[in-house]
Amino acid sequence: LRDLTFDRILNQDTRTKTITYLCTLSSSAAILIAEKTAFSPDSSTLLTHPLTPPNILHHGSNDIYHWFLASHSAGLCPDKDPRGADLRFTLIHPATETHIRKYSAQKWRAVVETPEVYDKYVKKYVEEKRGSGRLNWVYNILDGKAERDRVICEDKDEEWGWVVLPDSKWDRTTLSALYTLCLVLRRDISSLRDLRKKHVPWLRRLQSSISAGICAAYPGLEEDQLRLYVHYHPSYYHLHIHAVSLEHDAGAGQYAGKALLLGNVISQLETMAGDDEAGFQNVDLAFTVGEESELWQRIF
Amino acid sequence: LRDLTFDRILNQDTRTKTITYLCTLSSSAAILIAEKTAFSPDSSTLLTHPLTPPNILHHGSNDIYHWFLASHSAGLCPDKDPRGADLRFTLIHPATETHIRKYSAQKWRAVVETPEVYDKYVKKYVEEKRGSGRLNWVYNILDGKAERDRVICEDKDEEWGWVVLPDSKWDRTTLSALYTLCLVLRRDISSLRDLRKKHVPWLRRLQSSISAGICAAYPGLEEDQLRLYVHYHPSYYHLHIHAVSLEHDAGAGQYAGKALLLGNVISQLETMAGDDEAGFQNVDLAFTVGEESELWQRIF
Repeated sequence: LRDLTFDRILNQDTRTKTITYLCTLSSSAAILIAEKTAFSPDSSTLLTHPLTPPNILHHGSNDIYHWFLASHSAGLCPDKDPRGADLRFTLIHPATETHIRKYSAQKWRAVVETPEVYDKYVKKYVEEKRGSGRLNWVYNILDGKAERDRVICEDKDEEWGWVVLPDSKWDRTTLSALYTLCLVLRRDISSLRDLRKKHVPWLRRLQSSISAGICAAYPGLEEDQLRLYVHYHPSYYHLHIHAVSLEHDAGAGQYAGKALLLGNVISQLETMAGDDEAGFQNVDLAFTVGEESELWQRIF
Repeated sequence: LRDLTFDRILNQDTRTKTITYLCTLSSSAAILIAEKTAFSPDSSTLLTHPLTPPNILHHGSNDIYHWFLASHSAGLCPDKDPRGADLRFTLIHPATETHIRKYSAQKWRAVVETPEVYDKYVKKYVEEKRGSGRLNWVYNILDGKAERDRVICEDKDEEWGWVVLPDSKWDRTTLSALYTLCLVLRRDISSLRDLRKKHVPWLRRLQSSISAGICAAYPGLEEDQLRLYVHYHPSYYHLHIHAVSLEHDAGAGQYAGKALLLGNVISQLETMAGDDEAGFQNVDLAFTVGEESELWQRIF
């Protein structure tokens, strides 16, 4: 290993903490893949073990959230060179029962929501989630009362319009991690379930104008480098499209069982049996829910 | 941080190298999330820097593959306690041009394959990939000539039958990481593109019998804890279903744009316009391809 000379980086993955190098060893090519190890179950000794990071740097706080970097190496101090850090810590204190539930592992279940189950149980759950001011944060954005400074691009037409904002997880700079949210201006579509064959022209225009708008705002990004998808179930019931760089691994939110590509939603509607009112209300939808979720506990 | 007392582990993710603890601090609950840092771009100094891991353990080789564990801490030696390792290394030497291509980052593209593009270009690509003995490894398994000892469960009916084997990535023990492959016995279906409305009864029986078979082989696993999906495009053109534990993060192979849930494939066929011969040959399919792939370079 120590005789390797490094030529160049072939690949890296900041999500899985791996990096791959092209190297030379004994006059022939070699590939070195380095990967940080996962924590072992007895990491409860993380901060008390002789291995305890000698250097801990507190680098920010916001309300109950506190962030730290730490380094095991006595010779390297994170506040001199943060790149020398081995570990990140996030501390949430004080933590409520809601926080504990949110951060606990939960088991997952594969369910099939038939049109009958949707009509009988899910529809009123969705209406509840749309009522009592719960979507006010969305309407404030659509009405231009909030987050105006964050808008990336938009179309203000009442029927065809939409607004694109950066997702809070994106640093708004790294193009390969572009992660945006598109809210439609019309207020009559709660989710995939409300999409019908008659919406196909509207969806096609949405798809092409969002892509064009984002790429105009970020030259260097091409339209076929974006993944446009919806969630079912979504986390709030006002139709929104996620537009994310294909280079970006956004985790479970992009999995089959949660995400549906907008292009495939459109083509499924186009080839569906029935008239203009036929749509996703007629289809069995298979997806994944967590056992801690309201959907599982109240309905499935 | 040092005043925290640890109560229990709430969650951990060996893929992203994070662990979440419930703790107590100043008599109230706190949540600590620890995460290994990603490699910084100048990690080409990985093995020559003063930070160079003093302890490197070679723990296996197979042909051109060599594996190592390493620890930065002078006090902890991986060959005494492998759990003390900070880094894993995989060395491939000598590496060929094919290896270098495989391990290099590639850009991704979102494409739409229309029925016309499928008929005109993709069909003959698929036929090429099914010919010249390329599927012999599959037929050897179906004929019982290979991997008999690895079969988890099967149905030997010529038309309705299938065989389930563990995926090579699975240790065949950890239920939460269950990762299996189901090959259908019939040889006339190359991929999703060949599925028609008339196949719905066959697909429904496939879905229920695979789930039942796997859960009978692994008591403790329930049928709704499995994700059953197909890939488009698949890595070989003989229809196969992936059956994976919902607890298992299998990465990009489970993303929308690659994976389609079997339940949704069935329901899309059921609600599709047309007669029994209508099917996925009639649909625009949106998915992701890598710029290094044959599909991109030869067709898209």
